[in-house]
Amino acid sequence: MSTYQALSEAEAVAYARKLPNLFQPDSELTSQEIGDGNLNLVFHIVEPSTGKSIILKQALPYAKVVGESWPLSLDRARIEAEALIIQGELCPDLVPVVHAAEPELALTVMQDLSDHVIMRKGLIEGSRYPLFAEHIARFLAHTLFYTSDLGMNQQEKKNRVKQFINPDLCKITEDLIFDDPYTDSPNNNVPPAIRDAVEAIWNDRELHLEVAMLREGFMTRAQALLHGDLHTGSIFIKPDSTKVIDPEFAYYGPMGFDIGAVFANLLLNYAGQEGWSKDEASRADYRGYLLGTIRDIWQRFEAEFRSLWNQYGVDRVFKTPGYQDLFMKRLLQDTFGYSGCKMVRRVHGLAQVADINQLQDEAAKERAQRIALGIGTSLIKFNRRAESIDQLLEIAGKAMK
Amino acid sequence: MSTYQALSEAEAVAYARKLPNLFQPDSELTSQEIGDGNLNLVFHIVEPSTGKSIILKQALPYAKVVGESWPLSLDRARIEAEALIIQGELCPDLVPVVHAAEPELALTVMQDLSDHVIMRKGLIEGSRYPLFAEHIARFLAHTLFYTSDLGMNQQEKKNRVKQFINPDLCKITEDLIFDDPYTDSPNNNVPPAIRDAVEAIWNDRELHLEVAMLREGFMTRAQALLHGDLHTGSIFIKPDSTKVIDPEFAYYGPMGFDIGAVFANLLLNYAGQEGWSKDEASRADYRGYLLGTIRDIWQRFEAEFRSLWNQYGVDRVFKTPGYQDLFMKRLLQDTFGYSGCKMVRRVHGLAQVADINQLQDEAAKERAQRIALGIGTSLIKFNRRAESIDQLLEIAGKAMK
Repeated sequence: MSTYQALSEAEAVAYARKLPNLFQPDSELTSQEIGDGNLNLVFHIVEPSTGKSIILKQALPYAKVVGESWPLSLDRARIEAEALIIQGELCPDLVPVVHAAEPELALTVMQDLSDHVIMRKGLIEGSRYPLFAEHIARFLAHTLFYTSDLGMNQQEKKNRVKQFINPDLCKITEDLIFDDPYTDSPNNNVPPAIRDAVEAIWNDRELHLEVAMLREGFMTRAQALLHGDLHTGSIFIKPDSTKVIDPEFAYYGPMGFDIGAVFANLLLNYAGQEGWSKDEASRADYRGYLLGTIRDIWQRFEAEFRSLWNQYGVDRVFKTPGYQDLFMKRLLQDTFGYSGCKMVRRVHGLAQVADINQLQDEAAKERAQRIALGIGTSLIKFNRRAESIDQLLEIAGKAMK
Repeated sequence: MSTYQALSEAEAVAYARKLPNLFQPDSELTSQEIGDGNLNLVFHIVEPSTGKSIILKQALPYAKVVGESWPLSLDRARIEAEALIIQGELCPDLVPVVHAAEPELALTVMQDLSDHVIMRKGLIEGSRYPLFAEHIARFLAHTLFYTSDLGMNQQEKKNRVKQFINPDLCKITEDLIFDDPYTDSPNNNVPPAIRDAVEAIWNDRELHLEVAMLREGFMTRAQALLHGDLHTGSIFIKPDSTKVIDPEFAYYGPMGFDIGAVFANLLLNYAGQEGWSKDEASRADYRGYLLGTIRDIWQRFEAEFRSLWNQYGVDRVFKTPGYQDLFMKRLLQDTFGYSGCKMVRRVHGLAQVADINQLQDEAAKERAQRIALGIGTSLIKFNRRAESIDQLLEIAGKAMK
């Protein structure tokens, strides 16, 4: 079984049965393929006699998006498994346990998280997750610090950069996030109702200049091992647990890209409250919860990151007085910029989000789209001037007026 | 001969004889080992009957610097050969021809350049090289542009980053250029006469902050395939020819590091004119030649780089109006900063330069050292405010007052 082939359900069961220390030797196992079939096979393997279960995820050698299909490296399965293992060493409670990984089969066997929900769905349903800010701030602080030159051996870090060279999946980001939304590309899905706002984006040179610089940063700044796709669809959650999944976009890039992904997706839900909230009071209340969560995440992240730096920084030079403050300010600025880019692409780019697209009321959907574009473009244009997280909250607040 | 062993002269000759299309089948070959024995063996192989000659360079598995020895990866020979081949494709007239490379033996067979002189020696002797500015500007523009996201396929570029991960040699730079000179490190060689100026550097927090940021850039910004050690000792020259050699420090880093290396070494010779010039008039004249060369290099580099970008830029986003101007300004700023770092380390760091150290007159040597530190620290402190190459020339001029 060392040459790649897509597994059948029977083969998935046979494979799972051979894994050590998971199931009873001769017990019955059931398998259900629960993936969407576009990128990966996802087998949910259950041992009914004990209730034990695992997920067996296998990458497919192509991607299907909106009906189109293009080849995609199976190496992403290796990258995902290796990133999960590193993240698991740094934050064992915040990622699924990896039971096994077989790169030749593009296969990862991991903890079943079906008692959690996808966070995007949870937010759409109006759930609140009081532990989320602490969890994701810790995930960000530990994974970004300990994989960077600040927190690990700097020569080993260079080998990590090599390990996580990820051209295929970076290309998707470079095109779909940093290029297509800013020009009349066939990859966009422009909602007709907001065509005027989208065309304004296509003609906004000030915006394009900032995006070009943010894209350059994405392509050249190997600061830390990023998750690379940290939206609320990559987070499994329940009130007492947060699990970050699917790091197949992992590569060495600018830290602000991961933090920005989290903020952008909270803000997309914030925009979507035009339709999800049942009245003005609950809308204001839930939006307050979302903005408070963003502030909380940044403040906890910053405190934790600085604390790790002060305690475990590996480097004399990086302890230079004033350097940490300047670093954190620049990281906040990057976070503004990448938050904005992550929002804009979700309104009229190729891949959009349920927080807005599943709104049934067309007028509410249009308002949500315009709010999301307003916040996104403002964050991008303001990025190099950002000084505090409160300015992000102000930008989000002003977009409502 | 596929397992590494250091070659004897007889083995070097035997190896050379087997290479195709170089020498006559049975002719006599002579070999002389002309390396300094600290890092590499360098065999000069000559066929007296035809006058043909080659260089056979073999890396040693250790480095000796000032009596100490530490292990050093033989992978640097692979990196050097592969960088030379890429540079040779881009600028065939500006690097030695590579006849053969055998990574297992850490061996590169290349063009013999013994009709050239090392540029550092040429400058110390007061020679002028009117073609040098055009040559090195073209080398910089073509190697930096065509190995960057601006000028090559951006996914292949990521594999190039992987190919040139170079932890051992980057570590040398990170320590000896960006760390030791700014603290009382045992790796420094502090000239007693200037101890006051060196201690001022050790206590200059404004300077340390800039150096910390420049070091971060060196460690994280994978802009282009750098030579990585582009001082005047890595340049073979004669009036009609320039050859850049020894790219064993090659890796993906910030473009300004290579440009800064060239400027720094011209400025170190400029400082050394305190002793090399025979009188005030010839000193002013030669310094004018050196500063004019720097201006000429930058102007030619900038024109060529912009021209390549406009003609051969691979990327729609990088053609965003205003982006190229901003990029060039930031590149100039990096160049100021890295020029300064490259100067300071040569005054009281581990590895110093003949332009200053071989001065016999102790007073002149001390003046030269103080001038070099003055220019270097000014360039570092000014780097983020730089707007034009003339400001670099002004800083160099003011250091004389």
